[in-house]
Amino acid sequence: MKKNFSRLMALKRMGIVENYEDIRLFTCAIVGIGGVGSVTAEMLTRCGIGKLILFDYDKVELANMNRLFFQPHQSGMSKVEAAAQTLRNINPDVEIVTFNYNITTTDNFQHFMDTISTGNLTGGPVDLVLSCVDNFEARYTINTACNELNIKWFESGVAENAVSGHIQFIVPGETACFACAPPLIVASNIDEKTLKRDGVCAASLPTTMGIVAGFLVQNTLKYLLKFGEVTHYLGYSALNDFFPTMNMKPNPNCEDGYCKKRQEEYAVKPKPEKREALKAEKEEPIHEDNEWGISLIDESAVPSSAEEATSLGQGLSYAYEVPEISGEPATYEENVQKDTNLEELMAQMKSM
Amino acid sequence: MKKNFSRLMALKRMGIVENYEDIRLFTCAIVGIGGVGSVTAEMLTRCGIGKLILFDYDKVELANMNRLFFQPHQSGMSKVEAAAQTLRNINPDVEIVTFNYNITTTDNFQHFMDTISTGNLTGGPVDLVLSCVDNFEARYTINTACNELNIKWFESGVAENAVSGHIQFIVPGETACFACAPPLIVASNIDEKTLKRDGVCAASLPTTMGIVAGFLVQNTLKYLLKFGEVTHYLGYSALNDFFPTMNMKPNPNCEDGYCKKRQEEYAVKPKPEKREALKAEKEEPIHEDNEWGISLIDESAVPSSAEEATSLGQGLSYAYEVPEISGEPATYEENVQKDTNLEELMAQMKSM
Repeated sequence: MKKNFSRLMALKRMGIVENYEDIRLFTCAIVGIGGVGSVTAEMLTRCGIGKLILFDYDKVELANMNRLFFQPHQSGMSKVEAAAQTLRNINPDVEIVTFNYNITTTDNFQHFMDTISTGNLTGGPVDLVLSCVDNFEARYTINTACNELNIKWFESGVAENAVSGHIQFIVPGETACFACAPPLIVASNIDEKTLKRDGVCAASLPTTMGIVAGFLVQNTLKYLLKFGEVTHYLGYSALNDFFPTMNMKPNPNCEDGYCKKRQEEYAVKPKPEKREALKAEKEEPIHEDNEWGISLIDESAVPSSAEEATSLGQGLSYAYEVPEISGEPATYEENVQKDTNLEELMAQMKSM
Repeated sequence: MKKNFSRLMALKRMGIVENYEDIRLFTCAIVGIGGVGSVTAEMLTRCGIGKLILFDYDKVELANMNRLFFQPHQSGMSKVEAAAQTLRNINPDVEIVTFNYNITTTDNFQHFMDTISTGNLTGGPVDLVLSCVDNFEARYTINTACNELNIKWFESGVAENAVSGHIQFIVPGETACFACAPPLIVASNIDEKTLKRDGVCAASLPTTMGIVAGFLVQNTLKYLLKFGEVTHYLGYSALNDFFPTMNMKPNPNCEDGYCKKRQEEYAVKPKPEKREALKAEKEEPIHEDNEWGISLIDESAVPSSAEEATSLGQGLSYAYEVPEISGEPATYEENVQKDTNLEELMAQMKSM
């Protein structure tokens, strides 16, 4: 599979990622193998992750064909079975384990806990849980498990009208957990399950789901391989291409006892120095996969940082790259709400 | 194929898109069926577009397996042939035409022009050309053709270090074309083709390419189906999740004669009223695909606009949706540079 990795190892040669090959050591659990989860699994598989553990209890249906990944001939198969088949074919080096059950039932919850706490390549906890589910109950279940097991996780979601979505990074004790902000509206008279049946109402688009999966895996890669900055909350509004970001501190009165325990642990933990962004160095490209034996004419023109890079040939640049290059950091900063106060947010919500 | 469309027709029931079924009438040409182009083609196929015309001259290689779409068993096949096979299997209702050649040679350029000017479902010009190529020459060729034929097109690009990208909407005579901003740096001593060989240097990630394809197709859908706002330029910087946007007016001194001609035509054309954003109305959901005959308990809770929608069950809401809901339009406006002056941009570039 060496040749398959040449474009990924280039991330190392270009100074973006220090040790790309570390990707082989990591394990992610993905809960929900639907429109977002299946693309998430495919991206991580093509990136060469060590192990994936997939949870879902649904079957592939023709109504799923408006999202990426599943194909009509897989209709009727369980989503995890169909996904594993496709993923193993794409990259047999990734270890893929599947569980065809609902994590929210009492029996399965215990098995889910056991699996994510011992499922990595050396018998320890998974490195991340990626939530790609479409309902409150499953998110709450993942939150409960991850708080108790002290496992970091990403929540993701796509709106029922298909034109917005978000990802959120949850670090137990350090950021707000899923239970930290008590739901203001809980329409408990409605049984969510009856509303979630295929074909009834929710819209979905392969674009929105692909973008949310892209954000999810990109931030997963940044977290696992320690490059760039992991965004704690990234929203996407398709109608006007708006991308809100924010950070949220945990609620000291969170109803989840393990969240409060993690907050106490975090409070007394020595805070690490803010990790310096991996400095992009001008490394001599190694060209280990160069089978033609040619050498590049202008080595110095290899883009050595995100700012310098363009989509054109090396040493070429064109004017449309300007906004990417200039970056306007002042405006960007204004757009990021650092450490948003939970009470203020709640007040905002109530006044809406 | 009715069942496959239930989640797409829901866009209409929810008031996002007025006539989703119009998607069947449109034709897009996609130039470049690589990491971005193949996902673009798959998204449009799953959205049920009428016709796709695919141009590429490359073969599928194992080094392409770190992006989405192609599978190892397709290695050695032409990219357009492999893509057409997969796409027809996913949705046989989409008419797919392929051309396995390089559009930049003299002979092929004329055929490319003929094809995009007569390739739609009724013998007229395609509705959009989507550029998913990886080099300057091909972009320039598309620009020349689209200016002459007066065809709107989207340019897209991903940086060689794999962590940034962009899309740009080019309307001949109305927005800056690809030739409007003369390249400030053109390393003409380097033959781009020798630099573009697989495995030599460029990095790529399925995440970045999937996100750029998502932006490209989402804005294509917004343009074709007349909903939301088509973003003229949308950048993506993965390291810090930064998304610059801008508009650019055409250059009155553009070296492309057809660009200047289109500018003159646009100058004397009566300007249409700015299309009002499709007002989201609370329509009674029709549930045409509801095969269980159930009726929803709380019809009024159906999300009727992007702002109201959540990823949870209808009538449910949770606090993490706040940043999407509040939207902070004031800050957003600051982040958008309306009608950026070309001279100012050039000056900015020169001073960097």
